[in-house]
Amino acid sequence: MIIVMQQGASETEIRGVEARLQELGFQTHPIYGVERTVIGAIGDKRNGHAEVILNLPGVERIIPILRPYKLVAREVKSETSCIQVRGVTIGGEGVVVMAGPCAVESEVQLIAAAKAVKEAGGHILRGGAFKPRTSPYSFQGLEEEGLKLLANAREATGLPVVTEVIDTRDVEVVERYADILQIGARNMQNFRLLREVGQAKKPVLLKRGLAATVEEWLMAAEYIAAAGNHKIILCERGIRTYETGLRNTLDLSAVPLVKELSHLPVIVDPSHATGNYRMVPPLAKAAVAAGADGLMIEVHPDPARALCDGPQSLTPERFAALMVEIERVATAVGRAYYPSEGRVRKLAQA
Amino acid sequence: MIIVMQQGASETEIRGVEARLQELGFQTHPIYGVERTVIGAIGDKRNGHAEVILNLPGVERIIPILRPYKLVAREVKSETSCIQVRGVTIGGEGVVVMAGPCAVESEVQLIAAAKAVKEAGGHILRGGAFKPRTSPYSFQGLEEEGLKLLANAREATGLPVVTEVIDTRDVEVVERYADILQIGARNMQNFRLLREVGQAKKPVLLKRGLAATVEEWLMAAEYIAAAGNHKIILCERGIRTYETGLRNTLDLSAVPLVKELSHLPVIVDPSHATGNYRMVPPLAKAAVAAGADGLMIEVHPDPARALCDGPQSLTPERFAALMVEIERVATAVGRAYYPSEGRVRKLAQA
Amino acid sequence: MIIVMQQGASETEIRGVEARLQELGFQTHPIYGVERTVIGAIGDKRNGHAEVILNLPGVERIIPILRPYKLVAREVKSETSCIQVRGVTIGGEGVVVMAGPCAVESEVQLIAAAKAVKEAGGHILRGGAFKPRTSPYSFQGLEEEGLKLLANAREATGLPVVTEVIDTRDVEVVERYADILQIGARNMQNFRLLREVGQAKKPVLLKRGLAATVEEWLMAAEYIAAAGNHKIILCERGIRTYETGLRNTLDLSAVPLVKELSHLPVIVDPSHATGNYRMVPPLAKAAVAAGADGLMIEVHPDPARALCDGPQSLTPERFAALMVEIERVATAVGRAYYPSEGRVRKLAQA
Amino acid sequence: MIIVMQQGASETEIRGVEARLQELGFQTHPIYGVERTVIGAIGDKRNGHAEVILNLPGVERIIPILRPYKLVAREVKSETSCIQVRGVTIGGEGVVVMAGPCAVESEVQLIAAAKAVKEAGGHILRGGAFKPRTSPYSFQGLEEEGLKLLANAREATGLPVVTEVIDTRDVEVVERYADILQIGARNMQNFRLLREVGQAKKPVLLKRGLAATVEEWLMAAEYIAAAGNHKIILCERGIRTYETGLRNTLDLSAVPLVKELSHLPVIVDPSHATGNYRMVPPLAKAAVAAGADGLMIEVHPDPARALCDGPQSLTPERFAALMVEIERVATAVGRAYYPSEGRVRKLAQA
Repeated sequence: MIIVMQQGASETEIRGVEARLQELGFQTHPIYGVERTVIGAIGDKRNGHAEVILNLPGVERIIPILRPYKLVAREVKSETSCIQVRGVTIGGEGVVVMAGPCAVESEVQLIAAAKAVKEAGGHILRGGAFKPRTSPYSFQGLEEEGLKLLANAREATGLPVVTEVIDTRDVEVVERYADILQIGARNMQNFRLLREVGQAKKPVLLKRGLAATVEEWLMAAEYIAAAGNHKIILCERGIRTYETGLRNTLDLSAVPLVKELSHLPVIVDPSHATGNYRMVPPLAKAAVAAGADGLMIEVHPDPARALCDGPQSLTPERFAALMVEIERVATAVGRAYYPSEGRVRKLAQA
Repeated sequence: MIIVMQQGASETEIRGVEARLQELGFQTHPIYGVERTVIGAIGDKRNGHAEVILNLPGVERIIPILRPYKLVAREVKSETSCIQVRGVTIGGEGVVVMAGPCAVESEVQLIAAAKAVKEAGGHILRGGAFKPRTSPYSFQGLEEEGLKLLANAREATGLPVVTEVIDTRDVEVVERYADILQIGARNMQNFRLLREVGQAKKPVLLKRGLAATVEEWLMAAEYIAAAGNHKIILCERGIRTYETGLRNTLDLSAVPLVKELSHLPVIVDPSHATGNYRMVPPLAKAAVAAGADGLMIEVHPDPARALCDGPQSLTPERFAALMVEIERVATAVGRAYYPSEGRVRKLAQA
Repeated sequence: MIIVMQQGASETEIRGVEARLQELGFQTHPIYGVERTVIGAIGDKRNGHAEVILNLPGVERIIPILRPYKLVAREVKSETSCIQVRGVTIGGEGVVVMAGPCAVESEVQLIAAAKAVKEAGGHILRGGAFKPRTSPYSFQGLEEEGLKLLANAREATGLPVVTEVIDTRDVEVVERYADILQIGARNMQNFRLLREVGQAKKPVLLKRGLAATVEEWLMAAEYIAAAGNHKIILCERGIRTYETGLRNTLDLSAVPLVKELSHLPVIVDPSHATGNYRMVPPLAKAAVAAGADGLMIEVHPDPARALCDGPQSLTPERFAALMVEIERVATAVGRAYYPSEGRVRKLAQA
Repeated sequence: MIIVMQQGASETEIRGVEARLQELGFQTHPIYGVERTVIGAIGDKRNGHAEVILNLPGVERIIPILRPYKLVAREVKSETSCIQVRGVTIGGEGVVVMAGPCAVESEVQLIAAAKAVKEAGGHILRGGAFKPRTSPYSFQGLEEEGLKLLANAREATGLPVVTEVIDTRDVEVVERYADILQIGARNMQNFRLLREVGQAKKPVLLKRGLAATVEEWLMAAEYIAAAGNHKIILCERGIRTYETGLRNTLDLSAVPLVKELSHLPVIVDPSHATGNYRMVPPLAKAAVAAGADGLMIEVHPDPARALCDGPQSLTPERFAALMVEIERVATAVGRAYYPSEGRVRKLAQA
């Protein structure tokens, strides 16, 4: 930590800051510059609340040096963490595709979607049973009934299932049915929920908050890890900017940046980021080229009748076409691409 | 709702859109322009999921006309809602000041803060017992013990108490001790928590999310109202922008904007917005001049030893000086200013 | 400047960085922490291009300590700079109001506006002759003809005149007619134009760029000062954020922040910030309460027929009513308020 | 254009708006909804200043239907525009790479960079002679001397040259030496400069402004086209957001979005967007996968001694390695990739 003193700070003020820092457990190293004095403070700001130094006379600002996260930092683990889910590896050589409808609407809809995902080569089935909706008047999800349908779809296709949990009281029931617990963008800083899934046994897919910095995102992951669950998958899904041409701004630069800072695998959701199915294919391919470990893509058997987010959903046909293209890009950037069983069969038939 | 067709959309496409709209319960009114056709759709988009129209051939975009909120809209109620809390009126003629420490740390600290607030003329005591902290390694609050200390401080000073609730499972206990339930910025779209406090009897203070639009903020209020609780106080507390000079960017233009759109009272928290005690006085005064119904200000008996947000806390002396200035500005903009009992006594002594 | 080394940087890497820093003219002070080493570099980063240190092996990041501006910094001058313009003082005790139409449209329109401004107590007349418009198909201003009309309006009312310059080639002609040269938000980083007005004799009104940080804004002022012109007035006019409820987000926290960082006077333009005349009065008052040295407000004799920005323009009646309110707020925050000659006459008549 | 009336607007108000619209040349079509009346106005808002309708009583807001740009819209031209520059085609099947140093520093530096670009397979040489720098104390470029060095480098390598122009007064001299005139991000709304390069004969590379919406970017292109120059290349270079992990946020979703809205070719500059050479390769590949027509990449023979933006510059070795990877991705997404003469020779030698 570096404390920058105000220009003209007195010797007494400098010594006062040093004294308080030492009291807080830091070693101090003042450097007297031409215009300003700065004080290097050795010790771990993360354990205390050293920001109160700002209240001392003569202090201008504090600059932290150590990153605030520890367990999820790349520095503690140089290879990317691999998360295993029923035979699918996230964070390994292959690019993993999670796909399915925004919301679970009915058995017919879900099974149709799941089969389409499977046949096209997707690896994991997504679908929302508990839906966080901006309006109280919108469809809020089938809740536990939806979870059961997801479990049935897994039964029918063999695809593992990822679904969102939005309330601390539901973690137990969601974990009973799902293979991966998803924390949505709006709950990225619902710290109680983070702590709760941190005590679960299943892996957690942590979406980046709508206006979360990369550092805050990693701190949210740190919450989960600190509570005991190290099986964390990060998911970039677009951030809020001034641009209104699409729903959000997909931040693909976050992919290589997070991979430099953390050992956690990172996937990308171009469907929610753009809200527009025509934008999904180019950005899905871009995500893979940028180094993402996987994708989350919305697929609906009949987008024009979807109860939620139809405009961003791919039809099964468009999804199948996209999977072929993703495979090519994955290969071009040196990612092994393990086609799912469904796609292997289809390739064999061709 | 207006559906804008693509340039060159065919007559068949236009008729297809009309048919689907009618199926969804809308009346349709096509207008054939020189470059484009638009279709006016009469009916309530809020009840359905009309966005799926976007998936039909020939459609370019949909423009909603009706605002998505109903219960909290100014249009349903022309006068501002007054919220009564133990004799204090929020949303009335007077400017109400809620003040106190960021976190409840101890009985000594809280009582000292509460007395300072009372003596300077503050109306309501704030203090966090459950703290949503960015880092899992930071002080997380005294929890129920903190609630008890708040109740004691109310006992000692007569000031009503506002405190944050961060978990659906805690709503009951918080309501038992507090007079106003606060929903923090990070939980503004924790829809389950909104629904839960919507079923409480006590008023709710709803902070604007860090990157929430005014419309989303009002939709969050709509969630609470739709669940049955109409006693809602909005609180602007700074939004996230590209500017890094201060912690967030206080959006004072939201005050007159929200007052035009909604009948709910609006207060402003300059302490969290700026993170810097030197910025609090000018922005507190500006908030009142902009028409805010109240303020939320952090006051700590010893900011340099605060466990949380010391740098933004006013000392009792600075707070007392600010209250005098706020009174002057409130009067200048035609707000009656009802000094609390404590300040009346002090004025009488002077 | 502080250089933060990567965790595990070798002694050779640390010495390599020190050697290069010394070559660039810095003294170096390494501090060996538990997790990382940082190197304090004493010297002036502003004179060089020390960022290339980032290319050396083992370096993680560089943290500048000195602010990049010098001439406009508060540290070099503790009292606020006063700018004198034909008897009006900007940056002094009084709050100065610049008002008038967005664009100069005709002699009749401008004289009507100028008289309204004068009678209501405004101090300076604004009006655009060269208009930077987003669309090439919009009205681009009367150019030199507009400048002549401004000079006539000054003649008729005695009000000094501020108008925008948008091309290096026009600085000379604008300076011939105007009393203050305005640099618009879109040209805040048109460095050649800054340099050119820096060589002018007349004061410069520098609007904050649409997405400029406070630091960049002060660096733009530094450009003008470095070229020799120290008569600079800063103008906050709203920044671009994700919020779409109003045109931009007025950043009133910039007022006290800039006043802490710089000795230049700061005024606020609520008309452009909001694009909505109903928002102008509350935010104008808020700006004064926040400590602004003045206001820039659009006034048009017939907003519904304005060629530019009618929706944000006040009628003469609304402007006159606002001036009375501004006076009250100015007094409440201890600003002397010098009514213009016109208002004094009106008050005398009343 | 759609005019939304306030709830409860009177019949007189509605007729007043219709009358004014007709006066402005619009046909009107009122639609009476349950809660609100809207008025469809047929005609071209782009030719007038219809926003003044907002000042009429009973009007709530105006919703434009037609996009504000015409000449650059995809609707007027379904195939992408191809720009020819000395045998290189931008906007065709191939992906075009423009590379070179941020600033022209010396003959030795520039020739070394140009040869590296050529040998690795780059198609166009970039290099700044006039530099828009945030600080007046930073290196401002070699100006005309730099232009001459660029012409020499073209002579020596055969690579066409792109360089920035920052002042209306320099357009003539830059056009004399350069093959493509670059408008930098900070000048994207320097409308006079746009008009001036609109009168030039050479193609224009138009960088997106730091906080420009896609619509504003296309309107800036419309300025150039309206002045007569239709040879415009768009360049996405990162936008300003709240995220501070990298210099800016590269908006790759703008690539498919702009391609849907406009017929102009789009390239991407990952060097300026990130400010970090380690981020350049993944994002360059992602840009190509997203459908970009080309890339602009900074290459410096010795980044650690660069006078400008060293930290984002690739060494010749890293650039050569990246070119091989780009080729693979381009092929994977079906882009023909025409290696430059230099690379063909190298491949032949291998």
